[in-house]
Amino acid sequence: MSSNSNNQVYPVLWREQSPATPLQGHVLLIDQTRLPNEYTVVEINRYEDMARAIETMIVRGAPAIGVAAAYGVYLGARDIQTSDRSEFLAQLEPVAERLRATRPTAVNLFWAIDRMVKTARQTLGSVDHLKQTLLDTAKAINADDIQTCHQIGDHGLKALPTNPKKLRVLTHCNAGALATAGYGTALGVVRSAWRDGRLERVYADETRPRLQGAKLTAWECVQEGIPVTVITDNMAAHCMQRGMIDAVVVGADRIAANGDAANKIGTYSVALVAKAHNIPFFVAAPLSTIDFAIADGSEIPIEERNPSEIYTVGETILCPAGAEFYNPAFDVTPAALISAIITEYGAIAPAQLREQLADKQAG
Amino acid sequence: MSSNSNNQVYPVLWREQSPATPLQGHVLLIDQTRLPNEYTVVEINRYEDMARAIETMIVRGAPAIGVAAAYGVYLGARDIQTSDRSEFLAQLEPVAERLRATRPTAVNLFWAIDRMVKTARQTLGSVDHLKQTLLDTAKAINADDIQTCHQIGDHGLKALPTNPKKLRVLTHCNAGALATAGYGTALGVVRSAWRDGRLERVYADETRPRLQGAKLTAWECVQEGIPVTVITDNMAAHCMQRGMIDAVVVGADRIAANGDAANKIGTYSVALVAKAHNIPFFVAAPLSTIDFAIADGSEIPIEERNPSEIYTVGETILCPAGAEFYNPAFDVTPAALISAIITEYGAIAPAQLREQLADKQAG
Repeated sequence: MSSNSNNQVYPVLWREQSPATPLQGHVLLIDQTRLPNEYTVVEINRYEDMARAIETMIVRGAPAIGVAAAYGVYLGARDIQTSDRSEFLAQLEPVAERLRATRPTAVNLFWAIDRMVKTARQTLGSVDHLKQTLLDTAKAINADDIQTCHQIGDHGLKALPTNPKKLRVLTHCNAGALATAGYGTALGVVRSAWRDGRLERVYADETRPRLQGAKLTAWECVQEGIPVTVITDNMAAHCMQRGMIDAVVVGADRIAANGDAANKIGTYSVALVAKAHNIPFFVAAPLSTIDFAIADGSEIPIEERNPSEIYTVGETILCPAGAEFYNPAFDVTPAALISAIITEYGAIAPAQLREQLADKQAG
Repeated sequence: MSSNSNNQVYPVLWREQSPATPLQGHVLLIDQTRLPNEYTVVEINRYEDMARAIETMIVRGAPAIGVAAAYGVYLGARDIQTSDRSEFLAQLEPVAERLRATRPTAVNLFWAIDRMVKTARQTLGSVDHLKQTLLDTAKAINADDIQTCHQIGDHGLKALPTNPKKLRVLTHCNAGALATAGYGTALGVVRSAWRDGRLERVYADETRPRLQGAKLTAWECVQEGIPVTVITDNMAAHCMQRGMIDAVVVGADRIAANGDAANKIGTYSVALVAKAHNIPFFVAAPLSTIDFAIADGSEIPIEERNPSEIYTVGETILCPAGAEFYNPAFDVTPAALISAIITEYGAIAPAQLREQLADKQAG
């Protein structure tokens, strides 16, 4: 249903009810909280369910939550019972607000919701026409993201070191097909390298506390037969010291205008240890991840999540009563540690972001 | 039984059967694989059971396994059925060999076993007298380790930064009372700082894969009312970036003559990120941890453990079938990243180890 015969993974899919009722249908989400042990697909019909799916990380990954939120705006729009255009736009606002409040760090979420709301405001015609336009826009955001990931993968392949011939690439968290509409950003680069015969193996940081590397990145690699070795996060430096890693590629949830990049907690640590071993460190992310309104990483809001993510795994309680916890979900890697930011427009030095991309985002 | 009214923790204790039968008795081990959810004590009567307890990490931590192995040699000696001194010494060899084969990295294990065997060879008199001397030696190793830890704690307190007044100290794994005969090495420094009013809080890396920080360090701190915040290993760099950490103190399993220090996997990563933030990084360990026979860290054997330590937590399987794993139990931190090595003889610059301590170990 969500993976085709090539084992390609699409975590967010629009399923039409029938060609005769184009506005009817629902979104299918792969439930990423149940992978890798259970592959289940959740059907989403209402925007509130989409908001909860984003909050509980049934769908996660900056580009994927952008796509999911766009469909969420449409699902909310579809249920607005009015034929008055102004009333429709007024009632769309709380839908957008609810979806914006789900997670604070990834900017693609806000970018996608803003694009949907702006499209509604700028579209003339009946409310039914607006609804159709919103669905078309969400589908376009979905399709564009897949194409963008392929472009990122191909640009990233060109940016990777030319030596050795077959690379051992470390990644952190999951910036894969599951984190996007398909193909992935960091794992898009990995996939392009694999298809080109340039990949020896992926090293996947398990990525505590939620273990997206162990659970999701490893699962994606296994689906396509890409050799993958899972390590705990604290082993990356040791692997680099032993000469086992040729390059690091990670995703991003928000990139500031100066190139500072917020990504899953632990990314900053990987960037520091890569620098200490002179290993190139790449951030792969679409243009929509760059927030030119933010000068540097200190302004990026960092989500704190529930301590239970640290002190329980499955049914097992790890820590004694009386201990305290700190659970930031993201950290900020300074631009100085980033070799290049790989976008759909090419691999760009962090310091060149504004000059090379600001007009493209504005346009 | 293994903790007194001051909540002090003694993971290895000799329990005499009665004063009338001084050679009878057994060792009590806190089962560290069941903490923090269950506090259970295991009774060890035979050296093979002690070897298995070390292998399965019922007892762990470099100094603690030294003490446990010393008692293990005695338990093996006690069961040797001969009154012939040469025959006794010959039969003691396989006991020592079995205990040496339990774990490869911590040098205290070999140091303690060698001291026991040497004591047996150098002691004149009846086999019964040898057995009594071996028990006395194991008890002395036990008592000395507690005293050593207190000395390490007090020297470490003097080596800590003087500013701020109350320190936030990060530690990795468990170099606590549980890892020694009592009081701890890295946590000995923490305890001395706490008693002196110089400690604000401990940050405990959870320490994947076996989670000794989340399980053991947090448990020890809670026992004594020391404020402790558990973080995942990959959060340490972010905490340092935010100014939340004033010093790092860790233990060691083996220190080479040049000051390179093998410790729990992830220590090297912490040392690198501490260096990047100009935060002092201390290794606290007794003289018996230093292996002057080894020139530098590249010669320290690194134990690899079962991949299941990574892919399962409790009953939960984290990773998909088809993924591969790499599970080194230790890594080596180069001397250049270590501010000082805190021993029972004081805080010593890594480059000064041989000059200041080699004669003490020889003597």
